Amino acid sequence: MRGRIAVVQMQSELYVSDANRAKTASLIESAADDEARLVVLPELAISGYGLDEAGLRASAEPVDGPTLAAWADIARRRRIVIAGGFCELHEGRLYNAAMLVGPGGLLAHYRKLHLFDREKLVFTPGDRGLPVADTPAGRIGLCVCFDLRFVEVVRALALMGADIVAVPTAWVGGFDRNPRDAMGWIGQARGAAVQANLSQVYIACASQAGRSAEHRFLGSSLVCDPYGEALAGPLDDEAEAIVLADFDIAIARNAQIRSELVRPREDRRTDVYAVSAAGRTL
Amino acid sequence: MRGRIAVVQMQSELYVSDANRAKTASLIESAADDEARLVVLPELAISGYGLDEAGLRASAEPVDGPTLAAWADIARRRRIVIAGGFCELHEGRLYNAAMLVGPGGLLAHYRKLHLFDREKLVFTPGDRGLPVADTPAGRIGLCVCFDLRFVEVVRALALMGADIVAVPTAWVGGFDRNPRDAMGWIGQARGAAVQANLSQVYIACASQAGRSAEHRFLGSSLVCDPYGEALAGPLDDEAEAIVLADFDIAIARNAQIRSELVRPREDRRTDVYAVSAAGRTL
Repeated sequence: MRGRIAVVQMQSELYVSDANRAKTASLIESAADDEARLVVLPELAISGYGLDEAGLRASAEPVDGPTLAAWADIARRRRIVIAGGFCELHEGRLYNAAMLVGPGGLLAHYRKLHLFDREKLVFTPGDRGLPVADTPAGRIGLCVCFDLRFVEVVRALALMGADIVAVPTAWVGGFDRNPRDAMGWIGQARGAAVQANLSQVYIACASQAGRSAEHRFLGSSLVCDPYGEALAGPLDDEAEAIVLADFDIAIARNAQIRSELVRPREDRRTDVYAVSAAGRTL
Repeated sequence: MRGRIAVVQMQSELYVSDANRAKTASLIESAADDEARLVVLPELAISGYGLDEAGLRASAEPVDGPTLAAWADIARRRRIVIAGGFCELHEGRLYNAAMLVGPGGLLAHYRKLHLFDREKLVFTPGDRGLPVADTPAGRIGLCVCFDLRFVEVVRALALMGADIVAVPTAWVGGFDRNPRDAMGWIGQARGAAVQANLSQVYIACASQAGRSAEHRFLGSSLVCDPYGEALAGPLDDEAEAIVLADFDIAIARNAQIRSELVRPREDRRTDVYAVSAAGRTL
């Protein structure tokens, strides 16, 4: 199966959900016009990426709220799949959530497992595991931003059968000592590329861009192929833009067999990993 | 604890173990003269990195053979730790093995878990797990070359308490579509750097260099710090050279806590990883 991925790098206005939702709808339509079959939007695209609890509560919604309605409508009309982040309010708690929406409606609902920095002060950690869903654009896994810093995440999604990992992000500094390497790549983008290669998946990261009142975002949205090469991006930090890249699920599958005797998926030593970690969960 | 790592990039002569052993001894002495406390040598440093079974059998030895004797003698005299690869003959089978040797003798004996390409035709896969040992140069984990392409390996070694991962290698092409990125880094070195960052360990890789009758090696020996930055290297592919880098175990420990609220080791969601992989061993 072949298709086109669009990663939408944008800046959401802080805590102005209606305007942001309308902006995502417009950008998704634009990506569909460019023949995208999968559109990836940033982390907290609807609420904006901010950490003021009152602001987040004012722009939060349940998973079956207006964002699902808006995205499902476009997905149905345009026959596409949409991945993006929103602030979820559930039983009084806030989650840094994301959803995968297809022509038939909700395909996956994810709550960020690894909360970054001050996110811990406002969000509840994810309690819905890691999702992979069969979609009209292939088998797609979902995680959010800081999740990529844990090698288990992409690995688990790949082992669950994902050929593409969609990653809504809002990349900022605070983890790497030097945010950019000598080529200007940020650590997160470099890590995505390496992990795409090591787990033989496409990785499509859509980041918040520019500056808000609370954060300076690193942008760097990109699509990596299953050999760890950037097909498109990384974008400049200030750019609001849609990046397009063509995918072919056969390439991800073929990357699992580099040659007759080099088979990175089969060659795994599952008999050893957990034992070696002396009972610790890898 | 602070100290200095030396990675020795060299070309071993194919199947001439006595000459190679003497060469490693001379290079280890030289690294010790430069005040290295840990010296890392390439994969199959003693036999040479070749895949002719008769040649390997002629240059193989048991783990308590002449290489352990030679390296233990230097380690005792110079109060250093040595990691390096050799071809092990055990009960008629060949292993792509490595050992970690300190002033008191053998600290760890490893047999490569993930055999690369035609290695599968001559070596028996490793059956001794992944080793981590307390040494006078810190807590050191050991793996070999292609092992680095499996994210579980560095992760498991780190979770077992390694602060430094020593990696004897003989880097060749055959996994990445483009062996070098735009900066000239090979995928293996880039992957080592990213994984050092994600698992908060030093990674010290010593590769075979130049061309042999059977292979062209990529060199690129390097030492990465626990933030994923190259402290020394990557070396050119043809260079036979010793690379020195200073380490401080406190830096590896501190990298586990990037800030009060960013704690990549504690933040792991061990409650989720194995479950998400649906019973598959991560």
